[in-house]
Amino acid sequence: MADATMAMTMDKGLDHTIIGESTKSWIDGQKGVLEYVGIDIDDLARYSTFEETCWLLLNDRLPTAAELDAFTAQLRANYGLSEAMLTLLRSMPVSASPMHVVRTLVSAIALEDPNCNETSDEAEMNKAMRVLAKTPAIIAGFDRLRRGEEIIHADVNNTIAVDFLHMLNGEMPGEATSRALDVCLILHADHGINASTFATMVAVGTESDMYSAVTGAIGTLRGPLHGGANERVMNMLQSISSVDDVEAFVMGRLARKEKVPGFGHRVYRAVDPRATFLKTFAQAIAQETGNEDLYAMSSAIEGVMEREVGAKGIHPNVDFYSATTYFSMGLAIDLFTPVFALSRNAGWVAHAMERRSDNRLIRPRCQYTGPHGANYVPIAER
Amino acid sequence: MADATMAMTMDKGLDHTIIGESTKSWIDGQKGVLEYVGIDIDDLARYSTFEETCWLLLNDRLPTAAELDAFTAQLRANYGLSEAMLTLLRSMPVSASPMHVVRTLVSAIALEDPNCNETSDEAEMNKAMRVLAKTPAIIAGFDRLRRGEEIIHADVNNTIAVDFLHMLNGEMPGEATSRALDVCLILHADHGINASTFATMVAVGTESDMYSAVTGAIGTLRGPLHGGANERVMNMLQSISSVDDVEAFVMGRLARKEKVPGFGHRVYRAVDPRATFLKTFAQAIAQETGNEDLYAMSSAIEGVMEREVGAKGIHPNVDFYSATTYFSMGLAIDLFTPVFALSRNAGWVAHAMERRSDNRLIRPRCQYTGPHGANYVPIAER
Repeated sequence: MADATMAMTMDKGLDHTIIGESTKSWIDGQKGVLEYVGIDIDDLARYSTFEETCWLLLNDRLPTAAELDAFTAQLRANYGLSEAMLTLLRSMPVSASPMHVVRTLVSAIALEDPNCNETSDEAEMNKAMRVLAKTPAIIAGFDRLRRGEEIIHADVNNTIAVDFLHMLNGEMPGEATSRALDVCLILHADHGINASTFATMVAVGTESDMYSAVTGAIGTLRGPLHGGANERVMNMLQSISSVDDVEAFVMGRLARKEKVPGFGHRVYRAVDPRATFLKTFAQAIAQETGNEDLYAMSSAIEGVMEREVGAKGIHPNVDFYSATTYFSMGLAIDLFTPVFALSRNAGWVAHAMERRSDNRLIRPRCQYTGPHGANYVPIAER
Repeated sequence: MADATMAMTMDKGLDHTIIGESTKSWIDGQKGVLEYVGIDIDDLARYSTFEETCWLLLNDRLPTAAELDAFTAQLRANYGLSEAMLTLLRSMPVSASPMHVVRTLVSAIALEDPNCNETSDEAEMNKAMRVLAKTPAIIAGFDRLRRGEEIIHADVNNTIAVDFLHMLNGEMPGEATSRALDVCLILHADHGINASTFATMVAVGTESDMYSAVTGAIGTLRGPLHGGANERVMNMLQSISSVDDVEAFVMGRLARKEKVPGFGHRVYRAVDPRATFLKTFAQAIAQETGNEDLYAMSSAIEGVMEREVGAKGIHPNVDFYSATTYFSMGLAIDLFTPVFALSRNAGWVAHAMERRSDNRLIRPRCQYTGPHGANYVPIAER
């Protein structure tokens, strides 16, 4: 806790502020290390599943087989959307940005939770389950509807990754694709107190509920400086006609001091450890799905960027190779950020529950730079 | 800006952190002063209107008559809800908490704004207008529906306060009641970087859109430590049988170290200047509407609290007398916080626009207290 006699400090981006303690994820930005509850992200990406990673983040240790089975069963029991939720989904305009739909529908989950104001650990865990379990059906359902296809309902025999792809495409995904999505979900599940996770803490700080917190987080994730970045990466890749044009494209951007989407990160000076793993992965899935050109282009952009700005600590971040991976998987570009939300749900609910156990209202000040003691001049005299 | 070499500081509630500059509101917590753009809140409550206060907060000065007319006309042109919005409103479960409905429906305004991603001043102002103009119809419409009554549509001849009461009750409100609501809307319109306003800044920090920002703010306001406090005040008043029981009730709470809703504020050590004005107001409206007992009880609670904890800087805050005022006006208790949202929309959109013009991603750190370098133990070996 800050000392009560402490002076006020200006910190516009909170770059120098520690907002509290957490046991969820550890980032060493200088060395390029990310651990969830002490376990290296690389090991989790290789050996874990999204469901197990959710359990790990919620409980601060790996589950036993029985614990994981029980958790998975509870998640699956929550997969389905009620008739009321399906009605809402069907009334979404097909032209809407999917992130607006996801934010609106996740907000609506609260409408039918009679225990929304309960704050026992059990009630909180149930809210977390609902958010984690229902978001995939919301995203896939909306994408089906806007394509003029019927909604495909959740199947309790599937993992979250498999079921999402099944609800989206109407067929069971191949093993490589399911695994690719599962790995992406693991890699994006938590990342310290990023802006959207912080949004959940600001909401929980007033003792508001988990749905309010996650809804705020989805809105915060939407921004191009956060979750929206992966869509920008793909739009950039599509704007370059071939790998031969990469050099001129990147140099032009740098000369005009424009940002290159997917590069640089507030926290990392070394390479983003999530990007390292995803790169190998993106290459494999690109080859399998005939998107070698896309991968070659990504790789060429990385080469030019490393040569030009690598020494400044600007390296590819997680968005850079997740864009190629999602695209190769056949996801519409505007679903990239919703899939990020689906994954980051894990971190949001874990941090919301953690903060609740050691809470404080978050209320900074501003430096007031307007006038003082102004008169209220009657309108006729203005 | 913080110095790049600055050390990290723990500040769990951001009590000691200035998040940026602002020209919107000035609070002197020691003296009990609140000004919007330099004008004392007391003058605004006496002489201004909610519409004028919105313009003031958005433009940093009082409008001319022509400017106010143009702004009011534009607001009124946005009062109505589309058929799609009405369909959504009609599909809300009648048992839902109104704050969940307001959060979900304000989120849905984004679905039909084709210029949501435009960031020109004009586009931002249009988004602000939609939020300000449509929230009253959302709240009133839901309340009608859950009472089994038909929705009453907005009328462009009415001010926001009058139209809200008309849409709610199906009859034109009396002058005293309309004025009371208008004053409450002015008094709650802005209050520095409170938690919900801060939530808009966290969202805008990622360059997300205004609807996302306001949706997050509504979720944050919902908490009992913030906007939800006014409902707790009313529930407390209803739990006390008569003014004679006040002494024992308050002393009992204090003895058990329980909080008394409506007292104390993070920022004020002196009396909350909004409470001072509202107290006189609450008395008048209570007399007019035959709620003298309620006012007498509030006043008695204040008396005991002043005697016991006044010296510690714990005084009534804005929630304390707004509860009595809203109740006397005939509002359902669970509409108190939605009406707070309707008013605070003004501050939210003003701060969102202000932050956009001098933005920085808000990303604090946490103190990691979990394990390091843990092994991923295969599930069979756990």
